Amino acid sequence: MEEVKNDQIILKDYANGSPKETDFGKKTGRIALKVPKDSNGVLVKNLYLSCDPYMGTRFINKKSYLPPFTPGQVIVGFGVAKVVDSGNSNFKIGDLIWGMTGWEEYSLITDTKSLFKIHHTDVPLSYYTGLLGMPGMTAYGGFFEVCLPKKGETVYVSAASGAVGQLVGQFAKIHGCFVVGSAGTKEKVELLKNKFGFDEAFNYKAEKDLDAALKRCFPSGIDIYFDNVGGKMLDTVLLNMNLHGRIAVCGMMSQYNLDKPEGIYNSFCLVSKRIRMQGFVAFEYFNLYPKFLELVLPCIKEGKMTYVEDIAEGLESAPAALVGLFSGRNVGKQVVVVARE
Amino acid sequence: MEEVKNDQIILKDYANGSPKETDFGKKTGRIALKVPKDSNGVLVKNLYLSCDPYMGTRFINKKSYLPPFTPGQVIVGFGVAKVVDSGNSNFKIGDLIWGMTGWEEYSLITDTKSLFKIHHTDVPLSYYTGLLGMPGMTAYGGFFEVCLPKKGETVYVSAASGAVGQLVGQFAKIHGCFVVGSAGTKEKVELLKNKFGFDEAFNYKAEKDLDAALKRCFPSGIDIYFDNVGGKMLDTVLLNMNLHGRIAVCGMMSQYNLDKPEGIYNSFCLVSKRIRMQGFVAFEYFNLYPKFLELVLPCIKEGKMTYVEDIAEGLESAPAALVGLFSGRNVGKQVVVVARE
Repeated sequence: MEEVKNDQIILKDYANGSPKETDFGKKTGRIALKVPKDSNGVLVKNLYLSCDPYMGTRFINKKSYLPPFTPGQVIVGFGVAKVVDSGNSNFKIGDLIWGMTGWEEYSLITDTKSLFKIHHTDVPLSYYTGLLGMPGMTAYGGFFEVCLPKKGETVYVSAASGAVGQLVGQFAKIHGCFVVGSAGTKEKVELLKNKFGFDEAFNYKAEKDLDAALKRCFPSGIDIYFDNVGGKMLDTVLLNMNLHGRIAVCGMMSQYNLDKPEGIYNSFCLVSKRIRMQGFVAFEYFNLYPKFLELVLPCIKEGKMTYVEDIAEGLESAPAALVGLFSGRNVGKQVVVVARE
Repeated sequence: MEEVKNDQIILKDYANGSPKETDFGKKTGRIALKVPKDSNGVLVKNLYLSCDPYMGTRFINKKSYLPPFTPGQVIVGFGVAKVVDSGNSNFKIGDLIWGMTGWEEYSLITDTKSLFKIHHTDVPLSYYTGLLGMPGMTAYGGFFEVCLPKKGETVYVSAASGAVGQLVGQFAKIHGCFVVGSAGTKEKVELLKNKFGFDEAFNYKAEKDLDAALKRCFPSGIDIYFDNVGGKMLDTVLLNMNLHGRIAVCGMMSQYNLDKPEGIYNSFCLVSKRIRMQGFVAFEYFNLYPKFLELVLPCIKEGKMTYVEDIAEGLESAPAALVGLFSGRNVGKQVVVVARE
């Protein structure tokens, strides 16, 4: 059977702290462009790979809701790919899909249940790693289903220029909320205000007093907090929540690479303000994907929603792109292009 | 107008830490047993006063959902009383009521909206400070409305022999759950197992390793945690929660008298296990009081529910009773008898 070269990014080594580029290795294998006999999997050519914060929880020694990456094995994550061969009647050669794939040129995907077929190609394909993919569903499920927003409520989003945050802010505006975001550079803060339409934004790294910054932006308190960072920010937000506030705990980016997480000291606010704080993951809302597309596709086409991507070229740039995510080097959704069809 | 003596317990002084008996004073005033002209309040003779953990948040320097007690002023709290005079057509002389009253022999209650008329007197009247009063509604609202329990789920209750905890445990058993409670003495642990029907119980003060104790009692994890204490216990429970677990945050007894609260370090469990953690207060469920009585009154009469009270005799014993509550000296619901009708 004909085989082709298959470059792969593997986990080489990982000790602790934030993952480093040297923790990754490159391996060149060969792969047959055919699904094995009796397999109902699909063989895909990877086009776009997604770098997502949750991946920080999959390195060894981390507590995660997913198993850790295995040394010597290819990194896995969300991506957009094209079906090259199929043993599954739901997918045919030439189909475009998004879902869990490998950080390599070609992947054999056996768990096809988690794959979504791409029906709309009049938008950038890379959007299926972000706005139209898992981060999009994270923002949608977390904001609408967990936060249960009402028109006129005040919404705060941390890591607001990221893959998820920029969408939460735009959903909040579409829904008639007042929305404030924070990010870690002046450039990102400008994006929040000028590109994504946040009512207010601040650079949390430039604020000496987080509590004062929140009180300045929310003189009458926060109804909804979409938490992407955890730690001290979450703790300070608790002091500024309103009665019956809701906190969607999406991730704790600031905590993934600490040896010991920061403490939350203001949990009594949960009682005194009757706050609901709820953790969630996007895939619990994947059944809403068609409804989500109905809302989002027209918004994209009419220019009512926008999406900023930070695109790294080439599979070999993937480790640096992921590592950069954990120090906030990316501006917008971090994508890696493996091939453009 | 005829006046009678009216002994009162007032807040004398409070600096910080756990309230002490010397923080309270006694004052003897006089009161007319008539509602003032044009008042639609009621004048009541106080029978039973309630000592409740939430009162720990009402001392000066505490963050609370209620205003702090005022030095020189009479202490207020829940109680059972008899109407001596009424300017309100909803209450007539001789009616028994429960609700917010003063720590004194007679009180003029002007905020009658929060008073409940007592219709069932074939149960101990003191129960209206506990099982049939605010703690009862706390247990009922918190367990059924916040935790949304399912038959067969595992339930953990801290401060489980207290006014609220003993009821949560019994509701959980009636609902078909597996329930474990913790308390701070051997005697209380015996009560949990032998009197309230908890499946398992432990003395948290005698456990060197809280995490190990929880793992021993819940080998397959905790579905529902009814939190009365906060702090380190809450933090350790987070590690032992199951996927989609629910935490009703009722109070944080262990934290009220600390200068700085203990930190919660395991908040990432909210994400990884998609936990819902929700603060609540009983009065938001007071509209369910008739439904609650329908469930509870037959249970009491048929002996399916029991209630343990710790009764202090005389108004002058009230400060010591309240102070004792914060060190766990009470066994069961702490009540103070001012008068027996």
